[in-house]
Parts: sequence; structure tokens; C-alpha cells
Amino acid sequence: MIYLDNAATSFPKPNEVYDEILNCMKNYAANPGRSSHDMSIQASLKIAETRQELSSLFNIDNPFDVIFTCNATESLNIGIKGIIKKGDHVISTEIEHNSVLRPLNYLKNQGVEVTLIKVDEYGFIDRKELKNSIKINTKAIIINHASNVLGTIQNIEEIGLIAKKNGLIFMVDASQSAGIIPIDVDKDNIDLLAFPGHKGLLGPQGTGGLFIRDGVNLDNFIDGGTGSNSSSMEQPDFLPDKFESGTLNTPGIAGLNEGIKFIRRIGIENIYKHEEHLTEYLLSELKKLSFIKIYGLNSTENRCAVVSINIDGIDSTKVGYLLNKNDIAIRTGYHCAPLIHNVIGTEKYGTVRISLGYFNTTKDIETFISVIKDIYNNN
Amino acid sequence: MIYLDNAATSFPKPNEVYDEILNCMKNYAANPGRSSHDMSIQASLKIAETRQELSSLFNIDNPFDVIFTCNATESLNIGIKGIIKKGDHVISTEIEHNSVLRPLNYLKNQGVEVTLIKVDEYGFIDRKELKNSIKINTKAIIINHASNVLGTIQNIEEIGLIAKKNGLIFMVDASQSAGIIPIDVDKDNIDLLAFPGHKGLLGPQGTGGLFIRDGVNLDNFIDGGTGSNSSSMEQPDFLPDKFESGTLNTPGIAGLNEGIKFIRRIGIENIYKHEEHLTEYLLSELKKLSFIKIYGLNSTENRCAVVSINIDGIDSTKVGYLLNKNDIAIRTGYHCAPLIHNVIGTEKYGTVRISLGYFNTTKDIETFISVIKDIYNNN
Repeated sequence: MIYLDNAATSFPKPNEVYDEILNCMKNYAANPGRSSHDMSIQASLKIAETRQELSSLFNIDNPFDVIFTCNATESLNIGIKGIIKKGDHVISTEIEHNSVLRPLNYLKNQGVEVTLIKVDEYGFIDRKELKNSIKINTKAIIINHASNVLGTIQNIEEIGLIAKKNGLIFMVDASQSAGIIPIDVDKDNIDLLAFPGHKGLLGPQGTGGLFIRDGVNLDNFIDGGTGSNSSSMEQPDFLPDKFESGTLNTPGIAGLNEGIKFIRRIGIENIYKHEEHLTEYLLSELKKLSFIKIYGLNSTENRCAVVSINIDGIDSTKVGYLLNKNDIAIRTGYHCAPLIHNVIGTEKYGTVRISLGYFNTTKDIETFISVIKDIYNNN
Repeated sequence: MIYLDNAATSFPKPNEVYDEILNCMKNYAANPGRSSHDMSIQASLKIAETRQELSSLFNIDNPFDVIFTCNATESLNIGIKGIIKKGDHVISTEIEHNSVLRPLNYLKNQGVEVTLIKVDEYGFIDRKELKNSIKINTKAIIINHASNVLGTIQNIEEIGLIAKKNGLIFMVDASQSAGIIPIDVDKDNIDLLAFPGHKGLLGPQGTGGLFIRDGVNLDNFIDGGTGSNSSSMEQPDFLPDKFESGTLNTPGIAGLNEGIKFIRRIGIENIYKHEEHLTEYLLSELKKLSFIKIYGLNSTENRCAVVSINIDGIDSTKVGYLLNKNDIAIRTGYHCAPLIHNVIGTEKYGTVRISLGYFNTTKDIETFISVIKDIYNNN
């Protein structure tokens, strides 16, 4: 199968990821941070090492400011629900994923004021509108680094500066960018960075994380055993324990560790370049086909390897079905980002989304284009 | 290493568990319930199959009443925080784990009335005290099926009946019992059953679940993309989607599937018998040693394979250190269950906990006893 659904979960993973998950499962998948026997200590060390790897990748000073979660959605919920209170105002955008929109919708029902700023047809926010939306009770700006529908890359450095100048908390959803686009929490003034482990970071499903800048005080989320302060019924108030109740996914995190090491070995810039090259090729081939409508930017500037299209006269679901019959995996529909479809005019039928990964080749794209032509000609 | 820390995480797993995790990672770890290509469908089917396996194991009518979480602690938080509101009264016990005590402590600070009923030195609750604790505003009874410190097995069928007769929600923490002691949500009148995947169910870390009886309406917990109602900013209100936001841990759940199948193949009664036999042997050998203090019951009736002890005159931490030097993995300390130590008199130093699993042998116990004798004689 040609896998072009990397925005959902990257596939395949580097071999080292598979190997380490199995090695962990068979040799040291005991409870990290609990017991003091060798297996437990090895599990703890692997988790500490992964915190360090993530910190190096995102330029985080203190690895303890990184907490592990089971996916980016959990990270976003911990951040969003932990910081924004009744009476607060929060600014986000209409290009967000439901992992941001639904928590915000929940907060709105609790008395939080939510502004979703508009984006243009390419998915970019207007920084003037962002600035104009800031009010006396604005607490935070929450933004998608790269869109899972249009591939739009927002300029988080500039937005981070606006947040900083206005004393706002800046939260970034790096679901589509972590491991692919360089992120520097200091340079970009990021206070909360939510990321999945199973997409660009090349780890397995069941992993994710959240960077919490020192001084940003979030409410508890999941309370329980942490292996620390065991004799107390009070949840520890220090990181990472405050947000890591219950047994962590050690084999998953061990796999993630290898994913990040792979990225650092190849170089994130080279990963980006490879995906940019593939996207450029895909876009250029798609542009030759008059029956294809491409959404978002036509070029690769400020655009990651996520491309939404539709074929003239054929429903996106049917296109997905036919691509699958030809052993090509893509995703169709709304991609859990409801509002952007009103902007690009696909609110009734969604899009066909092609999302490329580091292991894709130009050959994959050639096959895809050839199949797309067949589908158009035969339907 | 002789692994006697199964109450934390069971180890090893059946080979089928390792094999299926790897098979999933390498062949079908796409997003379940999202895309419609073959890999995604295979992932969805595996998750549906695991829901079915869990339902068969716990006698749950509708597999959709089972939601997947990343561990029992998350399950307990979803249940406890989702059902008990300001002004409500909730009954639990002093033998609970911090995964129950800490969420209850959080609720107490939010205006919930919490009664923790006493247990005797063997860890059993007094059903009269339980009945007497019920008040007009009592909403739920939350109880540990089997203790992670003393191995005490509560009679959940009788407690469930008390809950039912009084119109209370009955929530069971099956962290130590799921996969080892038969549980029947109908016979036991269980409304909420929280369980980990990585202990008795023999799956990997990063998995767990919660059974939610039809009609028990819990608040949202993690909001986000579910692959369902994608065009809406409202979190779906149906199970399992309401509580399964973000990408599930497909390879973990695939591994869990094999763990449950293994249990059903061997027969849960046979697993229980094997662990009972090992516990009986361990207790009989420990009883011969005058320098050993055993906590909890001296026999295996209503007791699972978790045994807490101390060695006369040697700190539990030191015992753990020395056992580890002899390649034996156990856990020392408070085991995240702070209150029970006041009952058994170990509030200052904790216990040495030996927790057996299906893959342990009498040979493991012989070695353990021999090393324990050496430790006592040489320290």
C-alpha cells in the first residue's frame, strides 16, 4: 500500500522504533519511577532520556518542563482547560482542529469568551486582526502551527512576539509540525507546546507531550499515583509528576525516543527539505490536471506536506474508496477541522487529503497521479 | 531477573502480545475510525474486536459501553470526576490507591463530601459501616476490588447489591483484579468498572479502559477529534466516541487483545488457581521465618497474589536494594496507597511487596525465600 496519510499517523516508522519497542517490552517494561529494581530504573532512565531528546529538539532548558501524554489532544486539553477560566477571553482561529475547537467550545459553555479569528483562503491569519482582537481580559492565544487541511504554516515567531508584548500566554498546537518544522520555544516565545508522538516525531500511537513553560501554572488534570509523595493524598504540584499520574507508556516512549533520535540524526532541515521537494512535485503534477482543484497555496512556501484537493464531479468519499482499491491510502472528509471548510467552500463534501511523510518517494507520487487520472477518466 | 512486581505491571507478556504489537506497528498502525483505507479499517476492526473481547470477559452486553484510556488512573478520573458534583456525598475506603484518593481529595476541595470507611487489619471493609455511611445525598460507592498492598479481595457482589438497593452508582477499581479474578458487571451490579491493560490483562503499558453502564451519564473529559460528527464543534454525546478523543493507541490495544485472548484460552479460573497456588506456597514459606512480618491475611481465601512483608530490623528500602542485587524485582514503600499503612502500622517505613503473576513459578519463590534468608542473616 502507498501510504499518503501521514498527517493522521506517520507510517512506516524507522526500524529502530520497532526494535526498541520490542526490546523494551521484552526486557525492561516495568514501572518507571515506582520500584527501585533494575528494570524499573531502566524504564525511568529511558523516559528521562526521551524528555532530554524532546528538550534538545525544541530548545527547552529544563526537561522536567516536558510532560508525557497519550496524544496531542490530551496535551491540548490539559493546557487549554488548565489555564483559561470563566471570564477570561481567549483568541484562536477558524483553521484549528477539533482538538482545540471542542475544548474551546466546552469553555465557552462555562463562561469563557472565545474569539476565532478569520483566515484567508490559503489558511493564513491576519496579524492585524489578531492584534485588534486582544482585550483587557485576553488570557491566551492558541494557534495551529501547521494546518492538517491546507498545510498552511503560520508564522509562530511573529505571533509569539505579539503574545509576549501583550503579556498573553502563547499556546501552539504542533500536531502537524513537531519533528518536521523547526520549533524553538524560546525564539518563538511559546509558553505551551502540544505535540503528538505518532506523527512527525515518528514514534508509536499512544504517545504525545506538552511543554509547560516555568511559571505557567495549570490546573490539575488527571490525579492519581505518581510514585512521588506516595504517602500523601495531595497531587504533587511539581512537574512532570503533577500531570503524569498512573503508569506511563514506557514501550511507546522508548519507541518515540528512537523516532526523535532518527530525526536528529537525519537533521530536521533535511526532513523538511525532502517533504518540501515531494510537495513541490505533487503540486506541480496536480496543477497540470485541469479537473483537480487544489486548496490552499499553490507553492511550497509556508506550506507543509499536507495537500487537500477535489476531483471535478467526483465525491471525495468515492475518490478515497477508489484510491484505496488501488492500494493508495489517503483521507477524505473534514479532517476534524470543521470551520476551515466554510472558508474554502468544501463545507458540504470535504476534501481528499494527501499527506506525505519522510518515507514517501517521488515514485509514490507518480503512482498517485497516474491513479488519479484513471479515476477521473473512468468515473 | 526474577520479576515479582506484577502488581505494578505484569511481566513478561504472552509471546502473542509482542508479536501482534509488532505486526500492528509494521502493517496496520494507521488511524482507527478516521480514514477509510484498508490500514485504517484494519485498525478499527482490531479495536472493535478488543472491545468485544473485554465485553466477553466482563459480561458486558454492549461493547460500545467500553471506552479505551491510557491507564486505569485515567479511567478512574473520568468516572469519579464525571459523576460526582458539588454537594454530593461519596463513599470510598481507606484501602484505596491514590488513583482514587487523589481525585476524591480534589473533589473534596470542590465541595464534595467524602467518607472513607475503615478497613480491618486484613483490609476488609465492614459492610455495616458501609450501610450506615449512606446518606440522603450519597451518589456513589467507589471501591478497590483487590488491594495493591494487602491483596485483600472485597466482596464486590455484596457491596454492589448494597449500592443497587440504595440507588447508588457502584464504581469498581479493578486495577489488581481484571484478568485474574472473574468480574461480571451484571452479577456484581457494577456501573463503572475501571481497569488497566498492562497488569492482569497482560497487555502493554499505555492501555486501560472503563466500562460505563448505559444510563450513567458522565461529564466530558477530554474533548477533541473523534472521527465522528467531524463537521461539528460539539463533542459527540454517544459512547465510545464521547471519551475517545484523539488517536487511540492501536498497537497497544492490539497487544491487549492478545493478552485477553490468552486469558480466555487458559481460563481465568486457571490463572487464578495458579496464582493462588503460588501465593499459598509463598505464605507457607514466609510463615516459617520468625523474622518476617506478613501483613494482611495469612491464607489465600479472599486474597490475591500481592503479599506485603517486612524483615525484622531491616528497612524495606534496604531489603529492596539487596533483593535487586540478587536479581529479584519487588517494590518497596507505600505503593501509592497512603492510608492503609496507618492501619497496618507501616506508616513510617512502608512494606516490601511481592506480587506474583501467571508466569511465576514455585522455583521463583524458592529463590526468593533463600535470598530473603541470606539478607536477614547477613544484615
